[in-house]
Amino acid sequence: MAEKRTPIKVSDAVQKVMAYASRGQAEQVPLENSYGRFLAEDLIADHDVPSFDRSPYDGFAVRAADTAEITRANPGVFEVIGEIGAGSVFQGRVGQNQAVRIMTGAQIPAGADAVVMLELTKELDAAEGKRFELKRTLKSGENISFQGEDTQKGTILAAKGSFITPGIAALLATFGYDEVPCAKKPVIGVLATGSELLEVNEPLQPGKIRNSNSYMILAQIERAGGEAKYFGKFSDDLEQCVIAVKDALNQVDLLITTGGVSVGDYDYLPAIYEKLGADVLFNKIAMRPGSVTTVAALGQKLLVGLSGNPSACFVGFELFVRPVIRHHNFHRSPHVRKEKAYLGKDFPKANPYTRFVRAGLHYDDGRLTVHPSGFDKSSAVSSLAEANALIVLPGGTRGYQDGMMTDVLLLDDQKGSEWPWENIVPSYK
Amino acid sequence: MAEKRTPIKVSDAVQKVMAYASRGQAEQVPLENSYGRFLAEDLIADHDVPSFDRSPYDGFAVRAADTAEITRANPGVFEVIGEIGAGSVFQGRVGQNQAVRIMTGAQIPAGADAVVMLELTKELDAAEGKRFELKRTLKSGENISFQGEDTQKGTILAAKGSFITPGIAALLATFGYDEVPCAKKPVIGVLATGSELLEVNEPLQPGKIRNSNSYMILAQIERAGGEAKYFGKFSDDLEQCVIAVKDALNQVDLLITTGGVSVGDYDYLPAIYEKLGADVLFNKIAMRPGSVTTVAALGQKLLVGLSGNPSACFVGFELFVRPVIRHHNFHRSPHVRKEKAYLGKDFPKANPYTRFVRAGLHYDDGRLTVHPSGFDKSSAVSSLAEANALIVLPGGTRGYQDGMMTDVLLLDDQKGSEWPWENIVPSYK
Repeated sequence: MAEKRTPIKVSDAVQKVMAYASRGQAEQVPLENSYGRFLAEDLIADHDVPSFDRSPYDGFAVRAADTAEITRANPGVFEVIGEIGAGSVFQGRVGQNQAVRIMTGAQIPAGADAVVMLELTKELDAAEGKRFELKRTLKSGENISFQGEDTQKGTILAAKGSFITPGIAALLATFGYDEVPCAKKPVIGVLATGSELLEVNEPLQPGKIRNSNSYMILAQIERAGGEAKYFGKFSDDLEQCVIAVKDALNQVDLLITTGGVSVGDYDYLPAIYEKLGADVLFNKIAMRPGSVTTVAALGQKLLVGLSGNPSACFVGFELFVRPVIRHHNFHRSPHVRKEKAYLGKDFPKANPYTRFVRAGLHYDDGRLTVHPSGFDKSSAVSSLAEANALIVLPGGTRGYQDGMMTDVLLLDDQKGSEWPWENIVPSYK
Repeated sequence: MAEKRTPIKVSDAVQKVMAYASRGQAEQVPLENSYGRFLAEDLIADHDVPSFDRSPYDGFAVRAADTAEITRANPGVFEVIGEIGAGSVFQGRVGQNQAVRIMTGAQIPAGADAVVMLELTKELDAAEGKRFELKRTLKSGENISFQGEDTQKGTILAAKGSFITPGIAALLATFGYDEVPCAKKPVIGVLATGSELLEVNEPLQPGKIRNSNSYMILAQIERAGGEAKYFGKFSDDLEQCVIAVKDALNQVDLLITTGGVSVGDYDYLPAIYEKLGADVLFNKIAMRPGSVTTVAALGQKLLVGLSGNPSACFVGFELFVRPVIRHHNFHRSPHVRKEKAYLGKDFPKANPYTRFVRAGLHYDDGRLTVHPSGFDKSSAVSSLAEANALIVLPGGTRGYQDGMMTDVLLLDDQKGSEWPWENIVPSYK
């Protein structure tokens, strides 16, 4: 019969795992390929934006002082002494009652201290050169985007570890990064175990199921920001397994095994850990599903044994592997993001363990609600298809009712949480 | 001076664009590379899940009838006639007071109609063969996961056009898709215009700025699900521009130009459209920013002229290009997703045009709030870095106050909206 295992708290389990998490390295990535990667350095403005005083409109650059006496009845007349397209610099100086035609984004010419919009001017007979009439006054600085107004030199525009969004891509271009220092993705290996498993391209057989967990995990790795490497299925022979795990470990930063960690007679992961000389950090957690999730360490490398149950496997990945990947990518809040939302369903039965229920997050007129995804059994694959969140129901003696506020973990998210579990904030390497 | 342009409504502009949107083609993608792609076919269950009655626990399969008379004082005794590991099939039949040891996920043996969990049994002296004692009754069907309980054959598990999540990857594996029919990504070209633009690797020069919009758009294309192709900067020569646009159009499904559509003297896109013989669908929209967004069609191909202003460019892409990409990828709700949220700031000034304000979406204890992203001018690049939403402020005579409910468009989203604008739902090809 199976050995007796002592469950530890989810937060303790995460903390034990994170003690082994390490930061990755930087690699240079061409800017056009950097969307969705993580910054390996702070992005600092190395010049002001705008880098010169410029016009936000098409119009005329003038001296505000020359408009001081203007009234509707007594319009001012300005002589146009030149024009500046965007990207050009006007070489002269704007003098009294002179104006320079200026395009959006062009640099304000010397002498001028205001811009009048095109629509407010009236062209005059151009017999004596190009002139226009103006019927209102301008203040010094009016319609000028000043140097540094948007961003001052030295400002941190995006912190190391930030997910590169389209907006950050624009900033990187602005500050001259044709190559971007990005976090080199950690390589996360996946090895499947279980004699009941068929490969995806094999026909169904009585008593067997196709290996769906591995492909789910490969996608979860990509979503978290890792590089996935699939090593296929375990052999049934212990010696060969040990060789397969050793070999895989040499090629990855972290190795996930799925299946084979049920509390049954056929679980031989403990034997593998023993043969490898790996330290088992924990082999039971006070959570549902996924209580039999097992994590071991060999040197500085983690071996994460996720349950063969699809939901347990899914949850175990997000709690224990995602933060290792994000931490490696320099993320400052590597854990799955925790927020509050309203429950959309009763959970009348109490459970001594913390429950993680895969769920869909919805916005109902500004209110965040979570609905468990369809079929409720932990073996249901189909309910995972639309799940973008996990409802967290703390263990205890009570049930939970529709409309109550609950903790929820957001899966399609790049912001994350620093430490979602309790008030302990551990310090990582 | 510039020509007079007549603005059209945002919804009309989107409708004109979508009249040219077309569906793409399917291509086979290896399952392990399919995360983040869009399904080109409905994913239909071609067998029941589970595909056989199975045990959700480690335990013993028995006949419920043999437990009917059991009490705590009068326990039943069962003889263990064999065991079934996951993936194996038991060849015999369970008879009266017989049991078969069964692992999680294994097929229920013939004759048995219930499973008793390991923890509820007590091993007896094994002198006469392996036996256990049981002190409670079982109902027929107890602890059995029945064939089809999770998913029935024929069920549509994910619709054509769905974004492939980790959960969908698991389903694809379950149903034998080692290759997945995915939407072939539309190729979206980007051509920059503007003599003020420097390439990213050029040093700053007076009056000039680096070309940041193009790289922002390349990332927006990737996020939306397209394949981005950058053609570099326009030459200043009209004839060469026409050749560049023609050449680019031959290589893409849709061509974006950025810049050069300001209401200034230097805008020569209209001349290019004319030389190409392209139909201008509109060249002014009643929106801020981005009112000068211009879309033309040459045959069935769209030429989208986005403003050189970063915010206008950003907004124009999300409103007019994203839905074309998503529609091409078979998405059923291709438009940027519209939801309700609470404003986190006053907008006291009324504006006759619909405003789109880049914003950060936050969850405050189950309440969805939107805060405009930092600096408010439409030229601000830095405010775009963290923007994950656009606040929609309808045009009119009123301002908007902190705490009011507003429409908001969610940018980091795969769900989308069918038609977010008004009650007109157009029919697309």
